[in-house]
Amino acid sequence: MEKIQLNISDVLATVSRADIEALAPEAAKSLAKLTDHSGLGNDFLGWVKLPTSTDEKLLNDIEATAKALREDCEYVVAIGIGGSYLGAKAVIEALGNSFAAYLPGAPKVLFAGQNIGEDYLYELQQLLKGRKFGIIVISKSGTTTEPAIAFRLLKEQLEQQAGKDEARKRIVAITDAKRGALRTLATSEGYKTFVIEDNVGGRFSVLTPVGLLPIAVAGYDIKALVEGAREMEKATLSGKDMSAVTYAMTRNALYRAGKKIEILVNYNPKLHFFGEWWKQLYGESEGKDHKGIFPAAVDNSTDLHSMGQWIQDGERTIFETVISVAEQKYEVRIPSDDDNLDGLNYIAGKRVDEVNKMAELGTKLAHVDGGVPNMQLVVPALTENALGQMIYFFEAACGVSGYLLEVNPFNQPGVEAYKKNMFALLEKPGYEAETAAIKQRLEK
Amino acid sequence: MEKIQLNISDVLATVSRADIEALAPEAAKSLAKLTDHSGLGNDFLGWVKLPTSTDEKLLNDIEATAKALREDCEYVVAIGIGGSYLGAKAVIEALGNSFAAYLPGAPKVLFAGQNIGEDYLYELQQLLKGRKFGIIVISKSGTTTEPAIAFRLLKEQLEQQAGKDEARKRIVAITDAKRGALRTLATSEGYKTFVIEDNVGGRFSVLTPVGLLPIAVAGYDIKALVEGAREMEKATLSGKDMSAVTYAMTRNALYRAGKKIEILVNYNPKLHFFGEWWKQLYGESEGKDHKGIFPAAVDNSTDLHSMGQWIQDGERTIFETVISVAEQKYEVRIPSDDDNLDGLNYIAGKRVDEVNKMAELGTKLAHVDGGVPNMQLVVPALTENALGQMIYFFEAACGVSGYLLEVNPFNQPGVEAYKKNMFALLEKPGYEAETAAIKQRLEK
Repeated sequence: MEKIQLNISDVLATVSRADIEALAPEAAKSLAKLTDHSGLGNDFLGWVKLPTSTDEKLLNDIEATAKALREDCEYVVAIGIGGSYLGAKAVIEALGNSFAAYLPGAPKVLFAGQNIGEDYLYELQQLLKGRKFGIIVISKSGTTTEPAIAFRLLKEQLEQQAGKDEARKRIVAITDAKRGALRTLATSEGYKTFVIEDNVGGRFSVLTPVGLLPIAVAGYDIKALVEGAREMEKATLSGKDMSAVTYAMTRNALYRAGKKIEILVNYNPKLHFFGEWWKQLYGESEGKDHKGIFPAAVDNSTDLHSMGQWIQDGERTIFETVISVAEQKYEVRIPSDDDNLDGLNYIAGKRVDEVNKMAELGTKLAHVDGGVPNMQLVVPALTENALGQMIYFFEAACGVSGYLLEVNPFNQPGVEAYKKNMFALLEKPGYEAETAAIKQRLEK
Repeated sequence: MEKIQLNISDVLATVSRADIEALAPEAAKSLAKLTDHSGLGNDFLGWVKLPTSTDEKLLNDIEATAKALREDCEYVVAIGIGGSYLGAKAVIEALGNSFAAYLPGAPKVLFAGQNIGEDYLYELQQLLKGRKFGIIVISKSGTTTEPAIAFRLLKEQLEQQAGKDEARKRIVAITDAKRGALRTLATSEGYKTFVIEDNVGGRFSVLTPVGLLPIAVAGYDIKALVEGAREMEKATLSGKDMSAVTYAMTRNALYRAGKKIEILVNYNPKLHFFGEWWKQLYGESEGKDHKGIFPAAVDNSTDLHSMGQWIQDGERTIFETVISVAEQKYEVRIPSDDDNLDGLNYIAGKRVDEVNKMAELGTKLAHVDGGVPNMQLVVPALTENALGQMIYFFEAACGVSGYLLEVNPFNQPGVEAYKKNMFALLEKPGYEAETAAIKQRLEK
């Protein structure tokens, strides 16, 4: 398959090739740490060789499980948060029809447990009333608050609607191999299960069953997805393709030059959630020790009429990484019009994407002129293979980049802070001291 | 109706009341400029007294037009970009069912012309094939590239499917009162039209027909929406409610203290597009002259498992403004479970929103402890009235804030930069010199 390609030439007005290359020795060491496990967070490097070590048997099992859910259900609700939500969501949106929700054809993959919206859950339960639905519940521990609440509600509803026996067949649990609440429940209920390995963190889990099962249920080719990642893994780890390392070096050179915000740009609305996935990957990996590039994302040309003004003329503390999709799936040509009142006849007969590409190129030139360094990642098409490449590219680059930043890219200590307070406020057993302390604080 | 309320006490560890109050004289002058038209961009202040000057007759006309479209159509496509997209989208999403796309009941409001996605347009045209649909086309000039392309395609399709006569009845144009391509076409075809006034910029247009018609077509009460804005207009301009001014002062005090990024936070996924609307409002108004706060948005608790780590522990250059919705529409209680494997029984019987509120409070405390100043805007409920208040609150604050920043908050010169290049690249008539220049540049 055609490869994704990185172009960094439009950053060179801000950082020189020498500035970037100065990071090469550090970057090479960082890449080595990913494979020799000598760096920080080395308990969480299971993703590094995951694509090549994923065997056909597992993929077949996921596909068979997905097939059964597809045949049995009108809706399949994937329950998970963070990496147990964003990876599957990103791939499904990238590959799907923009108006999938309005189209016939079962089943629809819905998401729950990624928020604590009372109205969201109410409306979801109303939608599922009387419908045949299944559940993929994704949680290593089974006790994470958001997915646990959603699962309690939907499991009860499913058991009431379909009966306990049928419900058991339509619930798949993706969880720890041995321990935890969800493993225990799955064993006692006899749910079909898949394993979340200890050495793969949530934001690196899209190519495990966590991401692959919902993606397969939505009807996409997970073997092609994994194959794309496999190609990129081999090329990256062998040094044959240096693009992930180059991306890591370039963004760190820009950061060191005062560029504090990276904006991931797409010109295809289907990539919106890929941007959300990327924001978690980089924000959670690098935003620590009071440092890290702030990750933001825009969908163009929509956001050229929103954030475009800021990007063109605001503080010069940003850079952009543009995902450019070379080939579209369909062809739409701009019709000619006899009256030409709108003055569009000069582009009549052109494909819509030709105009989009000129918007993209015109924007790049304008932003570079305006002092915004710009990288492009050219993607051949929005296919499973290309998405697999993109996922591994950004994961590998993230590991290297985090080491260049001298943080542990694989922990997320800050995520615990709100949880601890929330548990104290909710008077969770075991949090008695914290509850007393927080109550006292709030009384002040 | 109950009022929205601003709380700034959780910024005071970063900026003192004295720091904020120091801006009061400037802020009072800025507010005065909005009504005496003595400031920069004073040709674009039509939004300031728009709610109180909107008459019943116009609202009735919009409602009657919406009713006709609702009766005639399965889908109504609102074609527009920037402010001609985001305002309506924000309000419709905030008021609607989270799963509206899956539910029966006509018509669905879809959007087009807010991107140049070839696959998006193809899939939209496929969806509309054989369906009864209508078009609301929103463009002051009628020549803005994105909406003009979408309108050419959909107008042709509608005329083919429904016939020219029926198509004319199902197209509503919102455009300039007298000039421009769309006005000319609407006159010659006899489309129903509404006017985009010269003195209201796109990002301030949600309470004009631009926003109101799609919102009414989606089934919401535009009179209540305008009434909410009217109350806030009166309270703000009379000085009775200083919250918009206080918000403007506080965010500028924070910016001057080195807080470069403002994150608009919600705990209700329905507010996602309100965040997008807000990003345009502030980004486009303030991102100029190499200054301005960078606007970002998160949907919590989803993004606590994504951007949460960065917010908690990344560079201390951010502050948050949290939109807190006091009352939910529906009630969902967490069920009890005999086995309690997930350990959730300590919250069994509680409403889901009680947990959400503790996540919110716990997060606020954690972020403040972590050095992130935090404002809260408490909104009584997601109703038309409250949204009207919120819209005017943020618009008025934006005007004041832009003047405090000493920029023209009502222009957007940077948005032209990409367009000029795009036209040159597409060889638009009249751009011959630019075409030659850009070709030469690219050959290098």
